[in-house]
Amino acid sequence: MKPKKLVECVPNVSEGRDPQKIEQLAQAVKGVPDVRLLDVDPDPDHHRTVLTIVGSPEGVEEAALKLVEKAVELIDLRQHKGEHPRMGAVDVIPFVPIQNVTMDECVELSKRVGRAIWERYEIPVYLYERSATRPEREDLATIRKGEFEGFFAKIQEPEWAPDFGERRVHPTAGVVAVGARPPLIAFNVNLGTGDLSIAKKIAQAVRGSSGGLRYVKALGFKLEDRGLVQVSMNMTNYEKTPLYRALALIEREAERYGVPVVGSEIVGLVPREALYQTAEFFLKLEDFRRDQVLEDRIERAFEEEA
Amino acid sequence: MKPKKLVECVPNVSEGRDPQKIEQLAQAVKGVPDVRLLDVDPDPDHHRTVLTIVGSPEGVEEAALKLVEKAVELIDLRQHKGEHPRMGAVDVIPFVPIQNVTMDECVELSKRVGRAIWERYEIPVYLYERSATRPEREDLATIRKGEFEGFFAKIQEPEWAPDFGERRVHPTAGVVAVGARPPLIAFNVNLGTGDLSIAKKIAQAVRGSSGGLRYVKALGFKLEDRGLVQVSMNMTNYEKTPLYRALALIEREAERYGVPVVGSEIVGLVPREALYQTAEFFLKLEDFRRDQVLEDRIERAFEEEA
Repeated sequence: MKPKKLVECVPNVSEGRDPQKIEQLAQAVKGVPDVRLLDVDPDPDHHRTVLTIVGSPEGVEEAALKLVEKAVELIDLRQHKGEHPRMGAVDVIPFVPIQNVTMDECVELSKRVGRAIWERYEIPVYLYERSATRPEREDLATIRKGEFEGFFAKIQEPEWAPDFGERRVHPTAGVVAVGARPPLIAFNVNLGTGDLSIAKKIAQAVRGSSGGLRYVKALGFKLEDRGLVQVSMNMTNYEKTPLYRALALIEREAERYGVPVVGSEIVGLVPREALYQTAEFFLKLEDFRRDQVLEDRIERAFEEEA
Repeated sequence: MKPKKLVECVPNVSEGRDPQKIEQLAQAVKGVPDVRLLDVDPDPDHHRTVLTIVGSPEGVEEAALKLVEKAVELIDLRQHKGEHPRMGAVDVIPFVPIQNVTMDECVELSKRVGRAIWERYEIPVYLYERSATRPEREDLATIRKGEFEGFFAKIQEPEWAPDFGERRVHPTAGVVAVGARPPLIAFNVNLGTGDLSIAKKIAQAVRGSSGGLRYVKALGFKLEDRGLVQVSMNMTNYEKTPLYRALALIEREAERYGVPVVGSEIVGLVPREALYQTAEFFLKLEDFRRDQVLEDRIERAFEEEA
């Protein structure tokens, strides 16, 4: 039965090539009560695997620690080369509130897990995103700079003491970032042109880091097989920066070049609420309450009186 | 626990004024296993109450029959006057497929219920909408014409033999229409003008009966307190005539009068899918699969492996 409180955990593990090891990592998570493994997505080029775990807060906590235990056993970062920057055998462990759980509860959860990772496995832990203990640790890229090899020096710098643990990089498993964040949506918008420079200019206009929308990360890509270009986005807080607003801005910028938006895609999963808010905006709904959604109302009715 | 198969039943009962009787009618439904009463909506002017019941096919079947039993006991149509046309103590019983149930299963369910209503209570039954046995019985208004008082003559006409039962109107409970139909969405669009004639003209343009969209019923109304007018719609099949298409047509027609659409509302419940398809359309999503919706995926994961 589905637990009442639901947390998602999306750990990134630095092994994307050996199917047997990936299977062992998945198995470490699978047996945990009140937990389901929704997805295992290995990337051989980047030599990393993204697992999507969901379950009760307690279940997800245990699953995350089991995964770290297995990763320490199987992965030796001294032998690891891939395209993606990495600093740990388990590189990053984000916790995401899904249902009947607050962000604060996920921050607390990330701290319990972080403390246990140091105590059990002697891997130094950096808290990031909403769990960060100082602003410069919110951004994962800033923490990860220097990667595994560089961390033996970095960890000795005054401002880079770990949040849990001593200034000792684990010899094979490195360090790990643990934190809480909102759900992330991968949202790509396709433009009716083959001119990559236009996608790049629009990506720059729309992303928060260069002055665009606060919770958008964006890059321009070419879709060779379709002769199109794409603005590829990570929406890091769809409640504050909704999908429809990013789309509207892209459409307006594209218009300036006489280019139409010809389609879009969501890669991976999207929370219901992101679709509800989109429908609400475009239909111009007034006073739309979420308990007007038939299936949600039905679920609540059967929960309440059960 | 929520049953795997879910059917909604939205019976209309000809009692909207006596709170005690309405409570007794609601109680008749409440005890049934695997059933929840989502809503009871009495309308004193129309002297009718709409109940929204949801549950397993078997549960909803039993609940519908219990409701008819109680209505026969409490309601005497000879004493009944209200603004809304009516022909039975229970006037109409539609069954709506919600989850893991086909329309065909709801048609079969409506026929079982219809047969039982005649056999147990001697109320003649007309099958309507998807359960209709001939085209002219699809439309409830056509069946209901003449109302309770007129039915004593109408039932003797060659083409108005009941689908279940003899040509004998129940002396106090009349006749009843039973059928299966898709979920209905009440969707109203507000126009930035006080000119009722514009809302009426647009309603005529958009409704199926006068040449507009096949599954739209529409009327024009005045919102006195806001100084606006409204196109008030019943969307009778949102899969074939989606909300966004009705809105687009209204916007286009309103433009011709220089009038903007200033808002809209959904009255009552709306299926998730109607919101998903709206988001999909406006975001121009390509290949969007419903198993990409995070919460739906989670639910399935916990169902499958439980």
